[in-house]
Amino acid sequence: MEIKVMKNILNANQNKADEIKQHLKEKKVLMVNIIGSPGAGKTTLLEKTIESLKETYSIAVIEGDVATDRDARRLQKYDIPIVLINTDGACHLESISIQNALAEFDLDKTDIVFVENVGNLVCPAEFDIGEFAKIAVISVTEGDDKPEKYPLLFREAKAMILNKVDLIEYTDFNKTEFDESLRILNGGLSKFEMSCRKNEGLEGWLDWLKNTHAETAK
Amino acid sequence: MEIKVMKNILNANQNKADEIKQHLKEKKVLMVNIIGSPGAGKTTLLEKTIESLKETYSIAVIEGDVATDRDARRLQKYDIPIVLINTDGACHLESISIQNALAEFDLDKTDIVFVENVGNLVCPAEFDIGEFAKIAVISVTEGDDKPEKYPLLFREAKAMILNKVDLIEYTDFNKTEFDESLRILNGGLSKFEMSCRKNEGLEGWLDWLKNTHAETAK
Repeated sequence: MEIKVMKNILNANQNKADEIKQHLKEKKVLMVNIIGSPGAGKTTLLEKTIESLKETYSIAVIEGDVATDRDARRLQKYDIPIVLINTDGACHLESISIQNALAEFDLDKTDIVFVENVGNLVCPAEFDIGEFAKIAVISVTEGDDKPEKYPLLFREAKAMILNKVDLIEYTDFNKTEFDESLRILNGGLSKFEMSCRKNEGLEGWLDWLKNTHAETAK
Repeated sequence: MEIKVMKNILNANQNKADEIKQHLKEKKVLMVNIIGSPGAGKTTLLEKTIESLKETYSIAVIEGDVATDRDARRLQKYDIPIVLINTDGACHLESISIQNALAEFDLDKTDIVFVENVGNLVCPAEFDIGEFAKIAVISVTEGDDKPEKYPLLFREAKAMILNKVDLIEYTDFNKTEFDESLRILNGGLSKFEMSCRKNEGLEGWLDWLKNTHAETAK
């Protein structure tokens, strides 16, 4: 009974996600789904990314949060459209909420939609929300064993951001083991190392976004 | 329909949790449920705690993990009973698995059971697994806004460990704001600051465990 209900939820979610994908494709909008632990640096990544791209691209943001509007408020300074989804305790976003949120944007005038998912490495990886790509964000202070311990996200992601590399010397993070576990899980993953807080090392990620958007807009 | 099923799951979980609580009380066993983000330092906390207490107390561990036995293997060196629960993708532990795991221990010869929950600040806080206390583990590198963003855990917890304080000078962590948000959420919370990796500052936490165990064993 529980299993059947869960399957129905996942099927309904996937149908809605497929509708979203089709709609975004028609509108030539790139949507990425940013997933990482609490405190991995997802909002700071968004801040620095928006600062760099907002003159060139029309950007909109969907902020997923369990309980507050803290992250959404942090992005208000950029004067871009933001929809906040408070999940009221739920641990991930689903496609029905994303569809409602997207209806708030003028997609004919939007290039990129960033979705910041709830801080969680487990459940958000299971739910397609109609994104073109899942982006895994992990910080060196979380440890090099995270891909092996939370494999689904790293298998599903098209790109991975290793954040807080400025702190690596104060940790036991083993870059060789980390890279090896990613290679085994997902050899095609695009990988970027940076310090979002210090605004260092974002170039590769920004180029990836620009190229990916160009593909989407073809 | 979904809501009703979820309620049934939570009720079934709570009934089982109540049975566990009663059983542990009869056996004078203290069980604590350790909850935190991926990489907050839960396993390292267990390592240092077991090292300090294993001569005085009979300790057993239940390790919750999405996919691997990495954390369980890290604890094998202490020659204590360990049961690994692989949730196979699920984001939290439930009381039925805990009851099965406890059946593997000789509770007449056990003083303290540590449960390391799945790395996640959201779902584990919703599920009573029969523990005497939930322990929230958070590291300074995750940021001072985590209690406000993930309030349920910090409301439910009896004790909170702020880990990786040796890294605080390299972060923007604001201790005053952090303490203030905890005070608002849960004024009765016992708070401990430490660096598990450097084995510094654990005394208050170890005293809390000793006193809490003494209360349980009365």
